[in-house]
Amino acid sequence: MNISRFWETGKKIVAVGRNYAQHAKELGNEVPSEPFFFLKPTSSYLLQGTGAIEIPNENSDIHHEVELGVVISKKGRDIDINSAMDYVGGYTLALDMTSRDQQAIAKSKGLPWSIAKGYDTFCPISGFIPKDKIKNIDDLELWLSIDGQIKQKGNTNQMIFNVPHLIQYISTIMTLEEGDLILTGTPSGVGPVKPGQKVKCGITDVAGMEFDVIQRKRN
Amino acid sequence: MNISRFWETGKKIVAVGRNYAQHAKELGNEVPSEPFFFLKPTSSYLLQGTGAIEIPNENSDIHHEVELGVVISKKGRDIDINSAMDYVGGYTLALDMTSRDQQAIAKSKGLPWSIAKGYDTFCPISGFIPKDKIKNIDDLELWLSIDGQIKQKGNTNQMIFNVPHLIQYISTIMTLEEGDLILTGTPSGVGPVKPGQKVKCGITDVAGMEFDVIQRKRN
Ligand SMILES: [Mg+2]
Ligand SMILES: [Mg+2]
Ligand SMILES: [Mg+2]
Repeated sequence: MNISRFWETGKKIVAVGRNYAQHAKELGNEVPSEPFFFLKPTSSYLLQGTGAIEIPNENSDIHHEVELGVVISKKGRDIDINSAMDYVGGYTLALDMTSRDQQAIAKSKGLPWSIAKGYDTFCPISGFIPKDKIKNIDDLELWLSIDGQIKQKGNTNQMIFNVPHLIQYISTIMTLEEGDLILTGTPSGVGPVKPGQKVKCGITDVAGMEFDVIQRKRN
Repeated sequence: MNISRFWETGKKIVAVGRNYAQHAKELGNEVPSEPFFFLKPTSSYLLQGTGAIEIPNENSDIHHEVELGVVISKKGRDIDINSAMDYVGGYTLALDMTSRDQQAIAKSKGLPWSIAKGYDTFCPISGFIPKDKIKNIDDLELWLSIDGQIKQKGNTNQMIFNVPHLIQYISTIMTLEEGDLILTGTPSGVGPVKPGQKVKCGITDVAGMEFDVIQRKRN
């Protein structure tokens, strides 16, 4: 399998919630005492340069969440935290696009998040970043702007659970496989995107990407 | 792609909740006015004959849910209800294994269902059932027994949303792809399985399968 094209070959996207304390607080949530996560479908991948982020319905409240993505290089279950980094093949810059209104309904009714998180184009990515391009994953600046205005800025040193901890924890529940992607959570500053806007984001000195936002057309 | 080995080639499992009114009521839930669904990872597949259903933790309350699975044969988005059956390549008999205790916590806290639904071995399947082996998907008897005692018995004619309706609805949110599986919901009678038990289930006159239940060993 070619993990440098993980968006074509990988089978799951495991997205961690509330992994930056300030972001948990901005949405009025408790800071978790152990990691939690949800799945996004691989049909939501949108590779930079191949299309626009779609707002699925009129008046949808669609939020940006800029995140560091970790690409898994080999199969593992009950992975030891001390060897967790051996399972990392590379990285990506990603957006965990979220229908905040549908997520709010799901949360209030005790329903799954899969619809709110799973629309087509809801996982924009920069492409593959080889592992050796990032020296220290615990000190990366993530940022996002809309139409040139900075909305999110944070550093992976603010993560509550670091990458080895996430790999260890997830692999006690579901086997991680080659080409799987882990989204590691978003720093504070999330907010809506609207048709006609341009979203730019980056990992400072490592990667950048930009996407137009459009209203989805229905057949 | 070979959809007759969808558990190896497919990328997503879309599982519909509360699609049989009696099952919604037995768990104290409202009957939904539109379909809702969640994702299970393909790492949870367990093909009949290849292993046992694992109880992930001591004292986990793991429930059986016997379901008709629908295997998608081609890519589609915003699929018209009148052509929805053209996207069906075949079927499977499946169990949507569920950690009922973790699901209850998720529901009460407004958290995702992915952990409760996503453990390894939580999607046992019979294998591939060719499309032409089932004459009428709206009149199939589903049943499940534990150690010879019948626990679930229902008929697909009790579904709230039928297969074409589910395909149409899901495809307005996420593109369906070749090898994807839709789990169509479970009839009433769900309940716990325990290590040492034997679970048997079937679609009368079409398919059957059986699995041992064991305690998961941790490294
Ligand atoms: Mg998947
Ligand atoms: Mg996120
Ligand atoms: Mg179910």
